[in-house]
Amino acid sequence: MPHVDFRTCPGQYRHWRLTADGPVATLTMDVDEQGGLTPGYELKLNSYDLGVDIELYDAVQRLRFEHPEVKAVVITSGKDRVFCAGANIRMLAAASHPWKVNFCKFTNETRNGIEDATANSGQIYIAALNGTASGGGYELALACEHIMLIDDRSSVVSLPELPLLGVLPGTGGLTRVTDKRHVRRDLADYFATKSEGIGGKKAVQWKLVDQAVPRAQWHEQVSERSRAAARSSPRLPGGWPGIELTPLEKTRTGGAVGYSCVSAALDRERGVAEITVRGPETAAISLDDLHALGAAFWTLAMTRELDDLILDLRTNEPEIGTWVLGTQGDAELVLACDALLLDHAATDWLASEIVLYLKRTLKRLDVTSRSLIALVEPGSCFAGSLLELALAADRSYMLSVAPAPHGPRITVGGMNLGPLPMGNGLTRLQTRYLGDAGALEAVEKRAAEPLDAADADQLGLVTFAPDDIDWDEEVRIAIEERASFSPDALTGLEANYRFAGPETVETKIFGRLTAWQNWIFYRPNASGPDGALRAYGTGKRADFDRKRV
Amino acid sequence: MPHVDFRTCPGQYRHWRLTADGPVATLTMDVDEQGGLTPGYELKLNSYDLGVDIELYDAVQRLRFEHPEVKAVVITSGKDRVFCAGANIRMLAAASHPWKVNFCKFTNETRNGIEDATANSGQIYIAALNGTASGGGYELALACEHIMLIDDRSSVVSLPELPLLGVLPGTGGLTRVTDKRHVRRDLADYFATKSEGIGGKKAVQWKLVDQAVPRAQWHEQVSERSRAAARSSPRLPGGWPGIELTPLEKTRTGGAVGYSCVSAALDRERGVAEITVRGPETAAISLDDLHALGAAFWTLAMTRELDDLILDLRTNEPEIGTWVLGTQGDAELVLACDALLLDHAATDWLASEIVLYLKRTLKRLDVTSRSLIALVEPGSCFAGSLLELALAADRSYMLSVAPAPHGPRITVGGMNLGPLPMGNGLTRLQTRYLGDAGALEAVEKRAAEPLDAADADQLGLVTFAPDDIDWDEEVRIAIEERASFSPDALTGLEANYRFAGPETVETKIFGRLTAWQNWIFYRPNASGPDGALRAYGTGKRADFDRKRV
Repeated sequence: MPHVDFRTCPGQYRHWRLTADGPVATLTMDVDEQGGLTPGYELKLNSYDLGVDIELYDAVQRLRFEHPEVKAVVITSGKDRVFCAGANIRMLAAASHPWKVNFCKFTNETRNGIEDATANSGQIYIAALNGTASGGGYELALACEHIMLIDDRSSVVSLPELPLLGVLPGTGGLTRVTDKRHVRRDLADYFATKSEGIGGKKAVQWKLVDQAVPRAQWHEQVSERSRAAARSSPRLPGGWPGIELTPLEKTRTGGAVGYSCVSAALDRERGVAEITVRGPETAAISLDDLHALGAAFWTLAMTRELDDLILDLRTNEPEIGTWVLGTQGDAELVLACDALLLDHAATDWLASEIVLYLKRTLKRLDVTSRSLIALVEPGSCFAGSLLELALAADRSYMLSVAPAPHGPRITVGGMNLGPLPMGNGLTRLQTRYLGDAGALEAVEKRAAEPLDAADADQLGLVTFAPDDIDWDEEVRIAIEERASFSPDALTGLEANYRFAGPETVETKIFGRLTAWQNWIFYRPNASGPDGALRAYGTGKRADFDRKRV
Repeated sequence: MPHVDFRTCPGQYRHWRLTADGPVATLTMDVDEQGGLTPGYELKLNSYDLGVDIELYDAVQRLRFEHPEVKAVVITSGKDRVFCAGANIRMLAAASHPWKVNFCKFTNETRNGIEDATANSGQIYIAALNGTASGGGYELALACEHIMLIDDRSSVVSLPELPLLGVLPGTGGLTRVTDKRHVRRDLADYFATKSEGIGGKKAVQWKLVDQAVPRAQWHEQVSERSRAAARSSPRLPGGWPGIELTPLEKTRTGGAVGYSCVSAALDRERGVAEITVRGPETAAISLDDLHALGAAFWTLAMTRELDDLILDLRTNEPEIGTWVLGTQGDAELVLACDALLLDHAATDWLASEIVLYLKRTLKRLDVTSRSLIALVEPGSCFAGSLLELALAADRSYMLSVAPAPHGPRITVGGMNLGPLPMGNGLTRLQTRYLGDAGALEAVEKRAAEPLDAADADQLGLVTFAPDDIDWDEEVRIAIEERASFSPDALTGLEANYRFAGPETVETKIFGRLTAWQNWIFYRPNASGPDGALRAYGTGKRADFDRKRV
């Protein structure tokens, strides 16, 4: 696998064009056939690989931060008569199992981000399918709030993965068809077995799309619909222009990753990354200052760096199975940044976007297939937004120091009590205390109070609170033991335990759908020498083991 | 794989003893080490295989039907100092992938049935762990309403699958620990990595068990708790004694399975089973008659036969991937049986038990990894309880005959409007019309009215309504096409589409947890020559591919 860099910017895009015309922006997919991330395949018919999706992710992020004026986003194609053929099949067929799974995870996260922009940022996404949308192409449309399909007797939407490739649509297609768009399950079944797809009025009747628009009216109707969406948008006003997402400064060696306030030491031998997040260095600022600082504001800088680090390690360091999470700094300053954001998140677009981005990044951590262990040590600042790292961890250890005044503290803040829900719709504290309202209430009562290890332990905020005699050995054993377990079983364990409580479209996609897809991807019927994924396009028929499992 | 027969009765049990003492029954697990279903392993330490679990399923069923007086059930062990060591490892290590998955599915269904007995039949299950309960042994306890663990400094509960075998607990353990018992997720994480388990007061504090009872008080406290449970039970009274679940009359050849009112023609070449359910032959009867008929009453006989057929085909015919569902008979008589049951289900234990059993059997169909196609033809009786078969199907075809009076009819009845919910807590109609209250209401308004193909199609009750010119070809293509697809992808597709809407502990177990487990089971880290499952007990350490997926 190549080393993948997730940093890009519009000037470097090879596959997308981002244009903004007042309140309506247009994202035009025009994939460069020769622009694949790795050799061996051509990105025909607007098919995509990870490189194409990295640009899409970047564009969606920039629209939120650099374009406060944009209230509707049209996704369309720059090709004639094809919207998007989905993930590139030759790329998938040649990719390793971890690569396929990681690729699908990232594309899922980007599509969830598109839905989050519509739901929470007032940037309403419209899919303008000016040609056929197959597989991942249709799934991209499904992530949009409104789907328009050109009605020209040839353009259709389809999910041909099952009949053609012997796999499932890998980017939430099945879940969104039934649970979001409410396509009747038997019609959905028929649709997913019909590789030639469905277009025109029937696609509307079956709820697969919202509108079928004759070619002659296409441009007018897309324009009308997007302007109407922009008018209905609740996007927050702000007296300031967009801020620039300046290039991330990053140093990357085999053993370390460094940014301005996030760093990671990589120990491949032990399979451990020690990730440290440093708190802010300056005192509370005003809303004016927040806009003036822009990407340099601590919370935004930290979130961008953490986001990039998660993606980097997930993709490039598959053998580093345990991430040890630490923080350094002044908890008061973390809480001051949190307070500034929370004070203005309901009225200021930038404050709101930063909180939403932090929410999405923590969700990315939740679905990361790495064991997460948080260490709360002296000098740390697990407070508010940074306490979420410990709450996202599978386990946490807090050093118990006697006499108490000298030990580390953790502080529950406003960020822990609502604005950063997990994919299941609950906060990490609510998930932690599922079914135990008393324990949650006890924690809420202690909000804003720095808690020592004894209190944190008693309240159930940390897993263990060893004293300094036991600390080194207990922590060492926990980390070494993790590395000795089956990586697969850990992934499954964590994917179940992290999502106690209700399920949503989002958690169903990462839990039920993705888990089935992982299994299918790994089976010879898909990926074996005679499997459907590898037989596709060769003229050979796949040779299936017909036993149902 | 051996041909498995799911029929048994207490006189044939080798592994369980069922004793009833007034309102309290005791199920004693005392596994015969030499009584494995297949050669090659010994069932030491009360470990179990499919054969042991078939007896447990039978016992739980008989308690409901043959023991109306029983209001509490104690599950305990007949061995000294061990409750149950879980599924037998050597059996699992040697089993094929489909066998493992099918075995876990059946054990899951039985544990769900235990929970259903507690929740809906007033037979409250108590796990009396008179010794260590590991893995599947603890998962059996988790299915009980109350868990008592003997506090003798050595007996513990544990989920050692991850550290010892590199797989997940396969019978709902992870989901029930967090979502049912509300063990905090970080403690649950620690617990699932600690093969030596947790006992005594800590097990209570962590909510892993409800009581830790000193040995000296064991018998008294188990007796006290079970009698208290019986006193609190809402089990319905009835002036009648239990009915006998008489031996199922069954003929089984390579090409056909036959019972009194259910039959199946097996076409291995095409991979198709044509299942026909015949309606009742006699007119409405009284509650007295229902009790007098007992197991001969149509609904109960049909449900038992369908249940056995599903288990038979699922286990013994893995290459028959498509089940075509048909009915024959008089819809009025089906609805009369339904009405008798529904009129008395709130007050009579037997009527209630029959409806609950039908519910569980239809749920078994929902989680069956076979494509289900319902054909509504002349002479059929898809009404009420039998209409559920068509609603459970992935797709249905109804013959459209002109002039209309001659065509088949379907009828929505009381059974379709509440008493037979799916695992997601919704009726099949509610799931079908998810997010479309108007469509559901339109169907409810037509309840009790025989609907022809045009009406059924317009209301969305059937998928397609071809006329007799198109019927043969359309149906043939649908069935042939199904057989041409990847069996794995179909399983994944159906496991997603069938469960639109909310998720429950039950659907999370079959969706999220089972899907991950299927993947893990299939990976070399578990099942390869050097995988943990096969290395267990050999003294060799498993050799893991350390890449996280």
